[in-house]
Amino acid sequence: MNVRIVEVGPRDGLQNERTPIPTEAKVAFIAALLNAGLKEIEATSFVSPKWVPQLADAAELWPLLPPGGLYSALVPNGKGLDRAISVGVSRIALFTAASDAFTQKNINMSITESLGAFREVMETFRSSTPGGFVRGYVSTAFQCPYAGIVEPSEVIRVSSKLLALGVDEISIGDTIGAASPREVRDLTRLLLEEFPAEKIAMHFHDTHGTAIANVDAALELGITAFDSSAAGLGGCPYAPGAAGNLATDDLVYFLERQGLKTGVDQAKLAQASLPILKSLGRPVQAKAQLAELASGE
Amino acid sequence: MNVRIVEVGPRDGLQNERTPIPTEAKVAFIAALLNAGLKEIEATSFVSPKWVPQLADAAELWPLLPPGGLYSALVPNGKGLDRAISVGVSRIALFTAASDAFTQKNINMSITESLGAFREVMETFRSSTPGGFVRGYVSTAFQCPYAGIVEPSEVIRVSSKLLALGVDEISIGDTIGAASPREVRDLTRLLLEEFPAEKIAMHFHDTHGTAIANVDAALELGITAFDSSAAGLGGCPYAPGAAGNLATDDLVYFLERQGLKTGVDQAKLAQASLPILKSLGRPVQAKAQLAELASGE
Repeated sequence: MNVRIVEVGPRDGLQNERTPIPTEAKVAFIAALLNAGLKEIEATSFVSPKWVPQLADAAELWPLLPPGGLYSALVPNGKGLDRAISVGVSRIALFTAASDAFTQKNINMSITESLGAFREVMETFRSSTPGGFVRGYVSTAFQCPYAGIVEPSEVIRVSSKLLALGVDEISIGDTIGAASPREVRDLTRLLLEEFPAEKIAMHFHDTHGTAIANVDAALELGITAFDSSAAGLGGCPYAPGAAGNLATDDLVYFLERQGLKTGVDQAKLAQASLPILKSLGRPVQAKAQLAELASGE
Repeated sequence: MNVRIVEVGPRDGLQNERTPIPTEAKVAFIAALLNAGLKEIEATSFVSPKWVPQLADAAELWPLLPPGGLYSALVPNGKGLDRAISVGVSRIALFTAASDAFTQKNINMSITESLGAFREVMETFRSSTPGGFVRGYVSTAFQCPYAGIVEPSEVIRVSSKLLALGVDEISIGDTIGAASPREVRDLTRLLLEEFPAEKIAMHFHDTHGTAIANVDAALELGITAFDSSAAGLGGCPYAPGAAGNLATDDLVYFLERQGLKTGVDQAKLAQASLPILKSLGRPVQAKAQLAELASGE
Protein backbone atom coordinates (compact mmCIF):
# COMPACT_ATOMS: atom_id res chain seq x y z
CA MET A 1 0.00 0.00 0.00
CA ASN A 2 1.15 3.48 -0.86
CA VAL A 3 0.69 6.09 1.84
CA ARG A 4 0.98 9.79 1.12
CA ILE A 5 2.18 12.25 3.73
CA VAL A 6 1.33 15.90 3.16
CA GLU A 7 3.77 17.99 5.17
CA VAL A 8 2.07 21.17 6.35
CA GLY A 9 4.71 22.47 8.78
CA PRO A 10 5.97 25.39 6.69
CA ARG A 11 2.42 26.74 6.33
CA ASP A 12 0.12 25.43 9.08
CA GLY A 13 3.03 25.04 11.48
CA LEU A 14 4.29 28.59 11.13
CA GLN A 15 1.21 30.69 10.43
CA ASN A 16 0.39 31.34 14.07
CA GLU A 17 3.95 31.90 15.22
CA ARG A 18 4.77 35.50 16.07
CA THR A 19 8.56 35.24 15.94
CA PRO A 20 9.37 36.19 12.34
CA ILE A 21 11.26 33.49 10.48
CA PRO A 22 13.45 34.82 7.65
CA THR A 23 12.64 33.57 4.15
CA GLU A 24 16.04 31.85 3.85
CA ALA A 25 15.37 29.91 7.07
CA LYS A 26 12.06 28.72 5.64
CA VAL A 27 13.78 27.65 2.43
CA ALA A 28 16.40 25.75 4.45
CA PHE A 29 13.63 24.09 6.49
CA ILE A 30 11.77 23.02 3.37
CA ALA A 31 15.01 21.78 1.77
CA ALA A 32 15.72 19.70 4.89
CA LEU A 33 12.21 18.22 4.80
CA LEU A 34 12.62 17.36 1.12
CA ASN A 35 16.03 15.88 1.84
CA ALA A 36 14.49 13.73 4.59
CA GLY A 37 12.23 12.23 1.94
CA LEU A 38 9.02 14.24 2.21
CA LYS A 39 7.62 15.00 -1.23
CA GLU A 40 4.35 16.87 -0.80
CA ILE A 41 4.90 20.06 1.13
CA GLU A 42 2.42 22.86 1.73
CA ALA A 43 5.00 25.62 1.62
CA THR A 44 3.13 28.81 2.40
CA SER A 45 -0.12 30.74 2.14
CA PHE A 46 -0.97 33.65 -0.13
CA VAL A 47 -3.06 35.12 2.63
CA SER A 48 -3.09 38.85 3.29
CA PRO A 49 0.18 39.89 5.00
CA LYS A 50 -2.01 41.97 7.29
CA TRP A 51 -3.62 38.83 8.74
CA VAL A 52 -0.60 36.53 8.73
CA PRO A 53 2.63 38.57 8.74
CA GLN A 54 4.65 35.36 9.13
CA LEU A 55 3.71 34.30 5.59
CA ALA A 56 3.91 37.74 3.99
CA ASP A 57 6.93 36.51 2.02
CA ALA A 58 4.98 33.86 0.07
CA ALA A 59 5.78 35.36 -3.33
CA GLU A 60 9.46 35.81 -2.41
CA LEU A 61 9.67 32.28 -1.00
CA TRP A 62 8.10 30.47 -3.92
CA PRO A 63 10.88 30.90 -6.54
CA LEU A 64 13.47 29.82 -3.94
CA LEU A 65 11.91 26.42 -3.24
CA PRO A 66 14.38 23.62 -3.95
CA PRO A 67 13.56 21.47 -7.00
CA GLY A 68 12.07 18.02 -6.54
CA GLY A 69 9.11 18.73 -4.28
CA LEU A 70 5.38 18.86 -4.96
CA TYR A 71 4.73 22.22 -3.35
CA SER A 72 1.34 23.67 -2.63
CA ALA A 73 0.10 26.93 -1.17
CA LEU A 74 -3.03 27.94 0.65
CA VAL A 75 -5.04 30.50 -1.28
CA PRO A 76 -7.76 32.28 0.72
CA ASN A 77 -9.36 34.32 -2.06
CA GLY A 78 -9.09 35.77 -5.58
CA LYS A 79 -6.46 38.28 -4.56
CA GLY A 80 -4.28 35.57 -3.05
CA LEU A 81 -4.82 33.45 -6.14
CA ASP A 82 -3.59 36.23 -8.39
CA ARG A 83 -0.41 36.50 -6.32
CA ALA A 84 0.02 32.71 -6.39
CA ILE A 85 -0.52 32.45 -10.14
CA SER A 86 1.95 35.26 -10.75
CA VAL A 87 4.77 33.17 -9.26
CA GLY A 88 3.65 29.93 -10.92
CA VAL A 89 1.95 28.03 -8.10
CA SER A 90 0.37 24.91 -9.60
CA ARG A 91 -1.04 23.27 -6.46
CA ILE A 92 -3.39 25.29 -4.31
CA ALA A 93 -5.42 24.62 -1.18
CA LEU A 94 -8.74 26.21 -0.28
CA PHE A 95 -9.94 26.49 3.28
CA THR A 96 -13.42 26.04 4.66
CA ALA A 97 -15.01 24.14 7.54
CA ALA A 98 -17.94 22.00 8.54
CA SER A 99 -19.06 24.54 11.15
CA ASP A 100 -20.48 27.94 10.27
CA ALA A 101 -19.44 29.30 13.65
CA PHE A 102 -15.86 28.45 12.74
CA THR A 103 -15.81 29.89 9.22
CA GLN A 104 -17.45 33.06 10.52
CA LYS A 105 -14.73 33.58 13.12
CA ASN A 106 -11.89 32.28 10.96
CA ILE A 107 -12.56 33.63 7.48
CA ASN A 108 -15.47 35.96 8.18
CA MET A 109 -17.85 34.07 5.87
CA SER A 110 -20.51 31.42 6.19
CA ILE A 111 -19.67 28.01 4.74
CA THR A 112 -21.97 28.74 1.82
CA GLU A 113 -20.26 32.07 1.19
CA SER A 114 -16.85 30.40 1.25
CA LEU A 115 -17.99 27.82 -1.29
CA GLY A 116 -19.35 30.61 -3.48
CA ALA A 117 -15.98 32.37 -3.36
CA PHE A 118 -14.21 29.11 -4.26
CA ARG A 119 -16.24 28.80 -7.47
CA GLU A 120 -14.61 31.90 -8.91
CA VAL A 121 -11.18 30.97 -7.59
CA MET A 122 -11.48 27.52 -9.17
CA GLU A 123 -12.48 28.94 -12.55
CA THR A 124 -9.58 31.38 -12.59
CA PHE A 125 -7.11 28.73 -11.42
CA ARG A 126 -8.23 26.03 -13.86
CA SER A 127 -8.10 28.39 -16.84
CA SER A 128 -4.69 29.80 -15.86
CA THR A 129 -3.09 26.55 -14.72
CA PRO A 130 -3.76 23.44 -16.82
CA GLY A 131 -2.85 20.32 -14.86
CA GLY A 132 -3.08 22.21 -11.59
CA PHE A 133 -4.09 20.47 -8.36
CA VAL A 134 -6.63 21.74 -5.85
CA ARG A 135 -7.09 20.57 -2.30
CA GLY A 136 -10.10 21.60 -0.24
CA TYR A 137 -9.78 21.71 3.54
CA VAL A 138 -12.85 20.76 5.56
CA SER A 139 -11.81 21.85 9.02
CA THR A 140 -13.63 21.30 12.34
CA ALA A 141 -14.91 18.02 10.90
CA PHE A 142 -15.48 16.51 14.34
CA GLN A 143 -15.74 19.37 16.79
CA CYS A 144 -15.78 23.14 16.58
CA PRO A 145 -14.19 25.29 19.31
CA TYR A 146 -17.25 27.55 19.15
CA ALA A 147 -20.18 25.26 18.33
CA GLY A 148 -19.20 21.90 19.83
CA ILE A 149 -19.76 18.53 18.18
CA VAL A 150 -20.13 18.66 14.39
CA GLU A 151 -22.55 16.33 12.65
CA PRO A 152 -20.95 13.92 10.16
CA SER A 153 -23.74 14.79 7.71
CA GLU A 154 -22.45 18.35 7.60
CA VAL A 155 -18.94 17.10 6.74
CA ILE A 156 -20.41 15.00 3.94
CA ARG A 157 -22.41 17.97 2.66
CA VAL A 158 -19.43 20.34 2.55
CA SER A 159 -17.17 17.65 1.07
CA SER A 160 -19.72 16.96 -1.67
CA LYS A 161 -19.90 20.64 -2.55
CA LEU A 162 -16.12 20.93 -2.73
CA LEU A 163 -15.80 17.86 -4.93
CA ALA A 164 -18.65 19.13 -7.12
CA LEU A 165 -16.66 22.35 -7.55
CA GLY A 166 -13.89 20.18 -8.95
CA VAL A 167 -11.33 20.01 -6.15
CA ASP A 168 -8.97 17.07 -6.60
CA GLU A 169 -8.81 16.16 -2.93
CA ILE A 170 -10.50 17.00 0.33
CA SER A 171 -8.62 17.11 3.61
CA ILE A 172 -10.82 16.34 6.60
CA GLY A 173 -9.51 18.21 9.62
CA ASP A 174 -9.85 17.58 13.34
CA THR A 175 -8.84 21.19 13.89
CA ILE A 176 -8.84 21.11 17.68
CA GLY A 177 -7.61 17.54 18.07
CA ALA A 178 -10.68 16.36 19.93
CA ALA A 179 -11.73 13.23 18.07
CA SER A 180 -11.07 9.65 19.05
CA PRO A 181 -11.07 6.59 16.78
CA ARG A 182 -14.75 5.78 17.25
CA GLU A 183 -15.76 9.07 15.64
CA VAL A 184 -13.07 8.69 12.98
CA ARG A 185 -14.37 5.24 12.05
CA ASP A 186 -17.94 6.52 11.87
CA LEU A 187 -17.09 9.50 9.69
CA THR A 188 -14.64 7.58 7.50
CA ARG A 189 -17.25 4.93 6.74
CA LEU A 190 -19.73 7.62 5.72
CA LEU A 191 -17.14 9.40 3.59
CA LEU A 192 -16.18 6.18 1.82
CA GLU A 193 -19.83 5.47 1.03
CA GLU A 194 -19.88 8.74 -0.91
CA PHE A 195 -16.40 9.34 -2.27
CA PRO A 196 -13.41 7.28 -3.43
CA ALA A 197 -10.61 6.92 -0.87
CA GLU A 198 -8.15 8.56 -3.29
CA LYS A 199 -10.02 11.84 -2.94
CA ILE A 200 -9.72 11.94 0.86
CA ALA A 201 -6.89 13.00 3.14
CA MET A 202 -7.13 13.22 6.92
CA HIS A 203 -5.67 16.07 8.92
CA PHE A 204 -5.44 15.19 12.59
CA HIS A 205 -4.29 17.32 15.47
CA ASP A 206 -2.76 15.70 18.54
CA THR A 207 -4.15 18.05 21.17
CA HIS A 208 -5.30 15.16 23.35
CA GLY A 209 -2.86 12.50 22.16
CA THR A 210 -5.33 10.68 19.91
CA ALA A 211 -3.92 11.57 16.48
CA ILE A 212 -1.96 8.38 15.78
CA ALA A 213 -4.88 6.25 16.95
CA ASN A 214 -7.07 8.24 14.56
CA VAL A 215 -4.64 7.70 11.68
CA ASP A 216 -4.64 3.99 12.46
CA ALA A 217 -8.45 3.90 12.46
CA ALA A 218 -8.71 5.73 9.12
CA LEU A 219 -5.90 3.69 7.56
CA GLU A 220 -7.61 0.44 8.54
CA LEU A 221 -10.68 1.59 6.62
CA GLY A 222 -8.73 2.54 3.49
CA ILE A 223 -7.65 6.18 3.82
CA THR A 224 -4.07 6.54 2.61
CA ALA A 225 -3.25 10.27 2.77
CA PHE A 226 -2.44 12.08 5.99
CA ASP A 227 -1.35 15.60 6.83
CA SER A 228 1.23 16.31 9.48
CA SER A 229 3.70 18.94 10.58
CA ALA A 230 7.39 18.31 11.28
CA ALA A 231 8.01 18.37 15.05
CA GLY A 232 4.29 19.01 15.50
CA LEU A 233 4.93 22.68 14.70
CA GLY A 234 1.86 24.83 15.02
CA GLY A 235 0.51 24.36 18.50
CA CYS A 236 -3.18 24.77 19.14
CA PRO A 237 -4.49 28.34 18.77
CA TYR A 238 -7.62 27.31 20.71
CA ALA A 239 -5.72 25.98 23.75
CA PRO A 240 -2.48 27.92 24.15
CA GLY A 241 0.31 25.62 25.34
CA ALA A 242 -1.43 22.49 24.11
CA ALA A 243 -0.27 20.38 21.19
CA GLY A 244 -1.59 21.05 17.72
CA ASN A 245 -0.68 19.38 14.46
CA LEU A 246 0.17 15.71 14.44
CA ALA A 247 3.98 15.54 14.29
CA THR A 248 5.32 14.13 11.04
CA ASP A 249 7.97 12.39 13.15
CA ASP A 250 5.28 10.45 15.02
CA LEU A 251 3.37 9.72 11.81
CA VAL A 252 6.42 8.38 9.99
CA TYR A 253 7.48 6.21 12.95
CA PHE A 254 3.97 4.78 13.15
CA LEU A 255 3.65 4.10 9.42
CA GLU A 256 7.09 2.50 9.15
CA ARG A 257 6.46 0.36 12.22
CA GLN A 258 3.18 -0.74 10.64
CA GLY A 259 5.28 -2.03 7.76
CA LEU A 260 4.40 0.76 5.33
CA LYS A 261 7.13 2.44 3.37
CA THR A 262 7.13 6.22 3.61
CA GLY A 263 10.48 6.93 1.97
CA VAL A 264 11.26 9.26 4.87
CA ASP A 265 14.55 9.02 6.78
CA GLN A 266 13.57 9.37 10.44
CA ALA A 267 16.98 10.59 11.60
CA LYS A 268 17.09 13.32 8.93
CA LEU A 269 13.51 14.28 9.72
CA ALA A 270 14.30 14.61 13.43
CA GLN A 271 17.06 17.08 12.54
CA ALA A 272 15.10 18.99 9.89
CA SER A 273 12.97 21.02 12.29
CA LEU A 274 15.64 21.77 14.92
CA PRO A 275 16.76 25.15 13.53
CA ILE A 276 13.16 26.41 13.31
CA LEU A 277 12.36 25.13 16.81
CA LYS A 278 15.44 26.96 18.04
CA SER A 279 14.42 30.18 16.30
CA LEU A 280 10.96 29.93 17.83
CA GLY A 281 12.39 29.11 21.27
CA ARG A 282 10.36 25.90 21.43
CA PRO A 283 11.59 22.63 22.90
CA VAL A 284 11.45 19.36 20.99
CA GLN A 285 8.15 17.77 22.03
CA ALA A 286 7.24 15.28 19.30
CA LYS A 287 7.70 11.88 20.89
CA ALA A 288 9.27 10.02 18.01
CA GLN A 289 11.59 12.98 17.43
CA LEU A 290 12.68 12.94 21.09
CA ALA A 291 13.28 9.20 20.87
CA GLU A 292 15.14 9.52 17.59
CA LEU A 293 17.38 12.29 18.93
CA ALA A 294 18.01 10.29 22.13
CA SER A 295 18.90 7.16 20.16
CA GLY A 296 21.37 9.10 18.05
CA GLU A 297 23.27 10.43 21.06
CA MET B 1 -18.06 -2.21 29.03
CA ASN B 2 -16.05 -1.82 32.18
CA VAL B 3 -12.47 -0.64 31.68
CA ARG B 4 -9.89 -0.85 34.45
CA ILE B 5 -7.07 1.63 34.74
CA VAL B 6 -4.09 0.59 36.84
CA GLU B 7 -2.25 3.74 37.89
CA VAL B 8 1.48 3.01 38.17
CA GLY B 9 2.81 6.56 38.57
CA PRO B 10 3.76 6.36 42.26
CA ARG B 11 5.88 3.25 41.58
CA ASP B 12 6.89 3.00 37.92
CA GLY B 13 6.75 6.78 37.50
CA LEU B 14 9.03 7.57 40.40
CA GLN B 15 11.43 4.64 40.62
CA ASN B 16 14.00 6.10 38.20
CA GLU B 17 13.79 9.66 39.49
CA ARG B 18 16.84 10.80 41.43
CA THR B 19 15.29 13.80 43.16
CA PRO B 20 14.09 12.35 46.48
CA ILE B 21 10.37 12.82 47.03
CA PRO B 22 9.36 12.93 50.70
CA THR B 23 6.95 10.24 51.88
CA GLU B 24 4.28 12.84 52.70
CA ALA B 25 4.45 14.17 49.14
CA LYS B 26 3.92 10.66 47.80
CA VAL B 27 0.95 10.19 50.10
CA ALA B 28 -0.51 13.51 48.93
CA PHE B 29 0.04 12.47 45.29
CA ILE B 30 -1.71 9.14 45.84
CA ALA B 31 -4.55 10.85 47.71
CA ALA B 32 -5.00 13.26 44.79
CA LEU B 33 -5.06 10.36 42.30
CA LEU B 34 -7.65 8.56 44.41
CA ASN B 35 -9.67 11.76 44.70
CA ALA B 36 -9.58 12.13 40.91
CA GLY B 37 -11.30 8.75 40.68
CA LEU B 38 -8.46 6.28 40.16
CA LYS B 39 -9.03 3.15 42.21
CA GLU B 40 -6.20 0.72 41.44
CA ILE B 41 -2.87 2.28 42.29
CA GLU B 42 0.53 0.61 42.36
CA ALA B 43 1.84 2.60 45.26
CA THR B 44 5.46 1.52 45.72
CA SER B 45 7.99 -1.28 45.47
CA PHE B 46 9.56 -3.32 48.24
CA VAL B 47 12.78 -3.41 46.29
CA SER B 48 16.12 -3.08 48.01
CA PRO B 49 16.68 0.57 49.07
CA LYS B 50 20.22 0.11 47.73
CA TRP B 51 18.89 -0.33 44.20
CA VAL B 52 16.01 2.13 44.28
CA PRO B 53 16.58 4.75 47.00
CA GLN B 54 13.48 6.65 45.85
CA LEU B 55 11.24 3.82 47.10
CA ALA B 56 13.19 3.02 50.25
CA ASP B 57 10.25 4.33 52.28
CA ALA B 58 7.82 1.62 51.09
CA ALA B 59 7.15 0.29 54.59
CA GLU B 60 6.72 3.81 56.00
CA LEU B 61 4.45 4.83 53.12
CA TRP B 62 2.10 1.86 53.24
CA PRO B 63 0.28 2.59 56.54
CA LEU B 64 -0.22 6.21 55.42
CA LEU B 65 -2.14 5.37 52.22
CA PRO B 66 -5.58 6.98 52.24
CA PRO B 67 -8.50 4.56 52.61
CA GLY B 68 -10.59 3.63 49.58
CA GLY B 69 -7.94 2.54 47.09
CA LEU B 70 -6.91 -0.87 45.82
CA TYR B 71 -3.19 -0.49 46.42
CA SER B 72 -0.52 -2.83 45.18
CA ALA B 73 3.24 -3.00 45.54
CA LEU B 74 5.99 -4.50 43.44
CA VAL B 75 7.82 -7.28 45.22
CA PRO B 76 11.12 -8.34 43.66
CA ASN B 77 12.00 -11.28 45.91
CA GLY B 78 11.41 -13.11 49.19
CA LYS B 79 13.07 -10.41 51.26
CA GLY B 80 10.84 -7.74 49.70
CA LEU B 81 7.82 -9.95 50.24
CA ASP B 82 8.59 -10.29 53.96
CA ARG B 83 8.73 -6.49 54.26
CA ALA B 84 5.48 -6.16 52.29
CA ILE B 85 3.66 -8.78 54.35
CA SER B 86 4.82 -7.16 57.58
CA VAL B 87 2.88 -3.98 56.72
CA GLY B 88 -0.17 -5.84 55.38
CA VAL B 89 0.22 -5.54 51.60
CA SER B 90 -2.51 -7.69 50.02
CA ARG B 91 -1.89 -6.99 46.34
CA ILE B 92 1.58 -7.66 44.97
CA ALA B 93 3.21 -7.47 41.56
CA LEU B 94 6.04 -9.67 40.30
CA PHE B 95 8.37 -8.57 37.55
CA THR B 96 9.82 -10.58 34.72
CA ALA B 97 10.19 -10.18 30.97
CA ALA B 98 9.91 -11.95 27.65
CA SER B 99 13.58 -11.36 26.89
CA ASP B 100 16.42 -13.05 28.75
CA ALA B 101 18.78 -10.24 27.81
CA PHE B 102 16.45 -7.87 29.64
CA THR B 103 15.93 -9.88 32.82
CA GLN B 104 19.68 -10.48 33.03
CA LYS B 105 20.43 -6.76 32.92
CA ASN B 106 17.39 -5.71 34.93
CA ILE B 107 17.05 -8.29 37.70
CA ASN B 108 20.26 -10.26 37.22
CA MET B 109 18.43 -13.53 36.47
CA SER B 110 17.31 -15.47 33.44
CA ILE B 111 13.56 -15.61 32.82
CA THR B 112 13.56 -19.20 34.08
CA GLU B 113 15.39 -18.21 37.25
CA SER B 114 12.90 -15.39 37.86
CA LEU B 115 9.97 -17.78 37.48
CA GLY B 116 11.66 -20.17 39.90
CA ALA B 117 12.01 -17.39 42.46
CA PHE B 118 8.35 -16.45 41.98
CA ARG B 119 7.24 -19.97 42.97
CA GLU B 120 8.53 -19.50 46.50
CA VAL B 121 7.24 -15.93 46.72
CA MET B 122 3.78 -17.08 45.61
CA GLU B 123 3.68 -19.88 48.18
CA THR B 124 4.66 -17.55 51.02
CA PHE B 125 2.23 -14.86 49.87
CA ARG B 126 -0.74 -17.16 49.38
CA SER B 127 -0.30 -18.82 52.78
CA SER B 128 0.16 -15.50 54.58
CA THR B 129 -2.46 -13.50 52.72
CA PRO B 130 -5.76 -15.25 51.95
CA GLY B 131 -7.67 -13.35 49.25
CA GLY B 132 -4.50 -11.63 48.11
CA PHE B 133 -4.04 -10.56 44.50
CA VAL B 134 -0.96 -11.17 42.38
CA ARG B 135 -0.07 -9.45 39.12
CA GLY B 136 2.77 -10.71 36.93
CA TYR B 137 4.55 -8.26 34.66
CA VAL B 138 5.78 -9.56 31.33
CA SER B 139 7.96 -6.70 30.19
CA THR B 140 9.70 -6.24 26.81
CA ALA B 141 6.78 -8.10 25.24
CA PHE B 142 7.39 -6.55 21.81
CA GLN B 143 10.96 -5.35 21.74
CA CYS B 144 13.95 -5.53 24.06
CA PRO B 145 16.45 -2.66 24.27
CA TYR B 146 19.26 -5.25 24.23
CA ALA B 147 17.98 -8.09 22.04
CA GLY B 148 15.63 -6.40 19.56
CA ILE B 149 12.29 -7.80 18.42
CA VAL B 150 10.71 -10.30 20.82
CA GLU B 151 8.80 -13.28 19.44
CA PRO B 152 5.13 -13.41 20.46
CA SER B 153 5.60 -17.12 21.23
CA GLU B 154 8.00 -16.15 24.01
CA VAL B 155 5.40 -13.80 25.51
CA ILE B 156 2.85 -16.62 25.42
CA ARG B 157 5.34 -19.00 27.04
CA VAL B 158 6.21 -16.65 29.91
CA SER B 159 2.56 -15.67 30.40
CA SER B 160 1.55 -19.34 30.59
CA LYS B 161 4.19 -20.02 33.22
CA LEU B 162 3.06 -17.05 35.31
CA LEU B 163 -0.59 -18.05 35.13
CA ALA B 164 0.36 -21.65 35.93
CA LEU B 165 2.10 -20.30 39.04
CA GLY B 166 -1.27 -18.86 40.02
CA VAL B 167 -0.93 -15.15 39.32
CA ASP B 168 -4.33 -13.47 39.02
CA GLU B 169 -3.38 -11.21 36.14
CA ILE B 170 -0.56 -10.68 33.69
CA SER B 171 0.46 -7.24 32.49
CA ILE B 172 1.99 -7.27 29.02
CA GLY B 173 4.52 -4.47 28.75
CA ASP B 174 5.90 -2.57 25.78
CA THR B 175 8.74 -1.44 28.00
CA ILE B 176 10.49 0.77 25.45
CA GLY B 177 7.35 2.02 23.71
CA ALA B 178 8.31 0.61 20.34
CA ALA B 179 5.23 -1.32 19.24
CA SER B 180 2.57 -0.19 16.82
CA PRO B 181 -1.01 -1.49 16.54
CA ARG B 182 -0.20 -4.19 13.99
CA GLU B 183 2.04 -5.98 16.50
CA VAL B 184 -0.43 -5.34 19.31
CA ARG B 185 -3.23 -6.91 17.29
CA ASP B 186 -1.09 -9.93 16.44
CA LEU B 187 0.01 -10.53 20.03
CA THR B 188 -3.41 -9.80 21.52
CA ARG B 189 -5.06 -12.35 19.22
CA LEU B 190 -2.52 -14.98 20.28
CA LEU B 191 -2.96 -14.14 23.96
CA LEU B 192 -6.74 -14.37 23.70
CA GLU B 193 -6.46 -17.78 22.07
CA GLU B 194 -4.71 -18.98 25.22
CA PHE B 195 -6.04 -16.93 28.13
CA PRO B 196 -9.28 -15.18 29.12
CA ALA B 197 -9.29 -11.41 28.55
CA GLU B 198 -9.94 -10.81 32.28
CA LYS B 199 -6.48 -12.16 33.06
CA ILE B 200 -4.69 -9.70 30.77
CA ALA B 201 -3.70 -6.08 31.24
CA MET B 202 -1.63 -4.08 28.78
CA HIS B 203 1.14 -1.74 29.81
CA PHE B 204 2.11 0.60 26.99
CA HIS B 205 4.83 3.20 26.87
CA ASP B 206 4.46 6.22 24.64
CA THR B 207 8.09 6.63 23.62
CA HIS B 208 7.16 6.97 19.95
CA GLY B 209 3.61 8.28 20.35
CA THR B 210 1.88 4.97 19.59
CA ALA B 211 0.50 4.11 23.04
CA ILE B 212 -3.09 5.31 22.58
CA ALA B 213 -3.28 3.63 19.17
CA ASN B 214 -2.07 0.46 20.86
CA VAL B 215 -4.68 0.74 23.60
CA ASP B 216 -7.33 1.23 20.93
CA ALA B 217 -6.13 -1.86 19.06
CA ALA B 218 -6.15 -4.03 22.20
CA LEU B 219 -9.48 -2.65 23.38
CA GLU B 220 -11.10 -3.46 20.03
CA LEU B 221 -10.04 -7.07 20.50
CA GLY B 222 -11.41 -7.31 24.04
CA ILE B 223 -8.66 -6.27 26.45
CA THR B 224 -10.15 -4.06 29.17
CA ALA B 225 -7.32 -3.32 31.63
CA PHE B 226 -4.58 -0.79 30.95
CA ASP B 227 -1.68 0.55 32.97
CA SER B 228 -0.71 4.19 32.87
CA SER B 229 1.12 6.82 34.85
CA ALA B 230 -0.29 10.23 35.79
CA ALA B 231 1.35 12.94 33.63
CA GLY B 232 3.34 10.17 31.93
CA LEU B 233 5.72 10.20 34.91
CA GLY B 234 8.64 7.87 34.50
CA GLY B 235 10.37 8.82 31.27
CA CYS B 236 12.25 6.19 29.34
CA PRO B 237 15.42 4.89 31.03
CA TYR B 238 16.55 3.49 27.66
CA ALA B 239 16.27 6.80 25.79
CA PRO B 240 16.94 9.66 28.21
CA GLY B 241 14.73 12.64 27.41
CA ALA B 242 12.18 10.51 25.56
CA ALA B 243 8.68 9.76 26.80
CA GLY B 244 8.01 6.66 28.86
CA ASN B 245 4.80 5.51 30.46
CA LEU B 246 1.52 6.22 28.75
CA ALA B 247 0.04 9.23 30.55
CA THR B 248 -3.11 8.44 32.52
CA ASP B 249 -4.40 11.83 31.37
CA ASP B 250 -4.19 10.74 27.72
CA LEU B 251 -5.67 7.32 28.51
CA VAL B 252 -8.65 8.75 30.38
CA TYR B 253 -9.36 11.35 27.67
CA PHE B 254 -9.25 8.62 25.03
CA LEU B 255 -11.48 6.19 26.94
CA GLU B 256 -14.06 8.83 27.83
CA ARG B 257 -14.12 10.12 24.24
CA GLN B 258 -14.67 6.56 23.10
CA GLY B 259 -17.81 6.59 25.24
CA LEU B 260 -16.39 4.43 28.05
CA LYS B 261 -16.88 5.52 31.62
CA THR B 262 -13.69 5.62 33.67
CA GLY B 263 -15.00 7.37 36.75
CA VAL B 264 -12.00 9.69 36.57
CA ASP B 265 -12.39 13.47 36.74
CA GLN B 266 -10.03 14.82 34.07
CA ALA B 267 -9.64 18.25 35.64
CA LYS B 268 -8.72 16.77 39.03
CA LEU B 269 -6.37 14.31 37.37
CA ALA B 270 -4.59 17.11 35.50
CA GLN B 271 -3.95 18.82 38.84
CA ALA B 272 -2.99 15.68 40.78
CA SER B 273 0.53 15.34 39.36
CA LEU B 274 1.48 19.03 39.35
CA PRO B 275 3.20 19.12 42.77
CA ILE B 276 5.32 16.05 41.93
CA LEU B 277 6.22 17.45 38.48
CA LYS B 278 7.26 20.66 40.21
CA SER B 279 9.39 18.80 42.76
CA LEU B 280 11.08 16.89 39.95
CA GLY B 281 11.57 20.05 37.90
CA ARG B 282 9.71 18.51 34.95
CA PRO B 283 7.35 20.40 32.66
CA VAL B 284 3.83 19.18 31.93
CA GLN B 285 4.14 17.12 28.76
CA ALA B 286 1.12 14.81 28.66
CA LYS B 287 -1.04 16.13 25.84
CA ALA B 288 -4.46 15.73 27.41
CA GLN B 289 -3.09 17.26 30.62
CA LEU B 290 -1.75 20.27 28.71
CA ALA B 291 -5.10 20.65 26.95
CA GLU B 292 -7.02 20.26 30.20
CA LEU B 293 -4.90 22.84 31.98
CA ALA B 294 -5.20 25.23 29.02
CA SER B 295 -8.98 24.83 28.93
CA GLY B 296 -9.24 25.59 32.61
CA GLU B 297 -7.36 28.87 32.34
